[in-house]
Amino acid sequence: MNPTLEIFSQGEEIVTGHTVDTNAAWLSQQAVALGFTVTRHTAVGDKLDDLVVLLKEISLRADCCICTGGLGPTSDDLTATAVAEAFGLVLEFDVVAFAHIQQFFMTRNRLMPESNRKQAMLPKGAERLDNEWGTAPGFAVHYQRCWFVFLPGVPSEMRAIFLEKVRPTLATRFTLRPSTLVSIKTFGIGESDIQQRIGGIAIPAQVQLGFRASLNEVQTKLLFPPNYPGAEMRLLVAEFADILGDVVFAVDGLGEVTGDLAFTVDQLMQAGKHTLAVVETASQGLLAGLCVGSAWLLETRYECSLARLAQKLALAISADDLLEAAKAVALATRHGSGADFVLVQLYAGDFPALLDKGKLIDLQTVLLAGGRCYQAKRSIAGLPQRKQNQAALLALDLLRRYLQGSVSDAHLC
Amino acid sequence: MNPTLEIFSQGEEIVTGHTVDTNAAWLSQQAVALGFTVTRHTAVGDKLDDLVVLLKEISLRADCCICTGGLGPTSDDLTATAVAEAFGLVLEFDVVAFAHIQQFFMTRNRLMPESNRKQAMLPKGAERLDNEWGTAPGFAVHYQRCWFVFLPGVPSEMRAIFLEKVRPTLATRFTLRPSTLVSIKTFGIGESDIQQRIGGIAIPAQVQLGFRASLNEVQTKLLFPPNYPGAEMRLLVAEFADILGDVVFAVDGLGEVTGDLAFTVDQLMQAGKHTLAVVETASQGLLAGLCVGSAWLLETRYECSLARLAQKLALAISADDLLEAAKAVALATRHGSGADFVLVQLYAGDFPALLDKGKLIDLQTVLLAGGRCYQAKRSIAGLPQRKQNQAALLALDLLRRYLQGSVSDAHLC
Repeated sequence: MNPTLEIFSQGEEIVTGHTVDTNAAWLSQQAVALGFTVTRHTAVGDKLDDLVVLLKEISLRADCCICTGGLGPTSDDLTATAVAEAFGLVLEFDVVAFAHIQQFFMTRNRLMPESNRKQAMLPKGAERLDNEWGTAPGFAVHYQRCWFVFLPGVPSEMRAIFLEKVRPTLATRFTLRPSTLVSIKTFGIGESDIQQRIGGIAIPAQVQLGFRASLNEVQTKLLFPPNYPGAEMRLLVAEFADILGDVVFAVDGLGEVTGDLAFTVDQLMQAGKHTLAVVETASQGLLAGLCVGSAWLLETRYECSLARLAQKLALAISADDLLEAAKAVALATRHGSGADFVLVQLYAGDFPALLDKGKLIDLQTVLLAGGRCYQAKRSIAGLPQRKQNQAALLALDLLRRYLQGSVSDAHLC
Repeated sequence: MNPTLEIFSQGEEIVTGHTVDTNAAWLSQQAVALGFTVTRHTAVGDKLDDLVVLLKEISLRADCCICTGGLGPTSDDLTATAVAEAFGLVLEFDVVAFAHIQQFFMTRNRLMPESNRKQAMLPKGAERLDNEWGTAPGFAVHYQRCWFVFLPGVPSEMRAIFLEKVRPTLATRFTLRPSTLVSIKTFGIGESDIQQRIGGIAIPAQVQLGFRASLNEVQTKLLFPPNYPGAEMRLLVAEFADILGDVVFAVDGLGEVTGDLAFTVDQLMQAGKHTLAVVETASQGLLAGLCVGSAWLLETRYECSLARLAQKLALAISADDLLEAAKAVALATRHGSGADFVLVQLYAGDFPALLDKGKLIDLQTVLLAGGRCYQAKRSIAGLPQRKQNQAALLALDLLRRYLQGSVSDAHLC
């Protein structure tokens, strides 16, 4: 029997629906991966009585509870008070916590408002969880059968504290027999196409198959029970990866650190010590934006029309032959930038076509790399933000294929 | 007192975190707008005992409960069974429901799998909610103090049934007096600073004050009870807006359509028929990316170093005088772009400073507009993504201040 875990989210913005509770989903995935059985999610607003009642309920029901929110400096942040009342503890001023909060403001050359002092009041006997990413320290405390962990609601802070401070202690505090979740990450293929391709694979009964589709990737998930033979695991995963082929950009869960498509590209660019120059149109900055913090990205440029781009680069190009135009732009850009690689993205049709969610745009991506020219053509639809996102990812994916050596001759131009 | 409402979501995919529960947020917003007080969200997996316990709990606690999920044809869809057991009802075969299900398959020229027959079994005495958008009919039933509404988990079906079949009946079944939520949206000020500034305002006891902080904005929320005099409401909101001053970029809830900072800038740029050219550094594409679909953004450029930028623009600039450098870049950019406005962003320190989450960078933003030059200086810290985000928003905010006429002489350079 796995230990049970509940997720408890606090905040009016969640119960009123102004914020979608993504923390609960993220924490649940983490807990399941560690070997917990997640039994319940609960969210309540900033009402002390509700919080106290709920904390008592959970303390009798679950082995572990991860709580988010309510640690801020303002009057509607009541978690510490609720914990003290529910578990019969007094609130104590934590000198170290207060020093961290002061430090946070000092390093930002800002004066600490008096109200932040409140964040240093922690329930007596609680284990402090320092927050190096914000002002609200988390804390953990045991009551009845349950180990409670309280984290800030800001997702970036919550995730950082959980990964660095909480996850390691959970593994020691509970007897966990984690199952292994392997995710095969793909871009450029739909969930139903994946299901068709893998239809022939014989999956052992103990292995659970699942999918997770988003705009940025589709993950094919294989959940292996505890103590499943590693060799067999790798064989099955390899079979999936082979059948899915060059749409696979990463396999997560077999030890390697992986991330999204931009992360994969970043790793490959750094490893190869390459440099890149970019010309964007439909992705309007997002292609560069996804590579933030990448020293290998030398320059990017966006022009709102092909005419402007032609004028700036002194090129005689037109939308009649988009591929030729993209090649010319790429060559001109490489000359000026001194980058090893050049990624250029153009689309047929004028600007309004980008805005009209009903309208399809034909996207032409070109990559200059290793003395050759590769291209990918794709029609994209939807709201501008969706077209922007797809355009950025399609360009990154052409680069990813080149770097992973899975770019086919079909891409040569 | 508003009637209380709880949201109950069923499904392993939710408790395990494979699916983010967007239904709960959407339904909560609907309920709040109708005049309910949403007190709790709960999610449990596909375990009969958990469902039965939870249904009984809620029946004693809430006036209304909207439940989603568990109405499918498969063995792990247990809602109807759980309702029958929790409320002591038998399941009856509903002829009309079955006819609808058969119809659904017929119109799609598909054979109805035998398993779908199960979806026509409804608790005796329940009110059927026909599903014209899928196979799973919803239903509603009263138990103890609570009116339970059960809807399919597929968001599109859930929303359609709620809007067409549920919302109208809720208004007749409950005495609802919707309250008004006004959000004052600010950028460039922290939650605790806001609290200090507004400390002196006398807030009537019936008005509820709350805050919502994210990286992109801080919202000061005022919840006004039903039938609160409109004139007094506007006076109080105005008092808040005045005291908060030029950090306010939008006020939501008084009739105007508002959005985030980029939305506000977009509206103002369109209204003024202005055009913009951008040079980014720390925001690396995100500044442009946030303006996606904006015809007024003529061009953007990113260079990974000041040296490269100087060379490209043939300027003799250095980081020793960042403000002068930014001005020079802005003038050169305006000349080439023909844009009315130019936004330039430079930062002191080299690229690694951007990557080091411990390192602060000094950001210099300059805006050329209306024949004058405005500037803003700010230190930003954190992970590259956070610096990128802050840098983009700080630049947009300087433009927003100019467009709203709230840019002060302190910004002149």
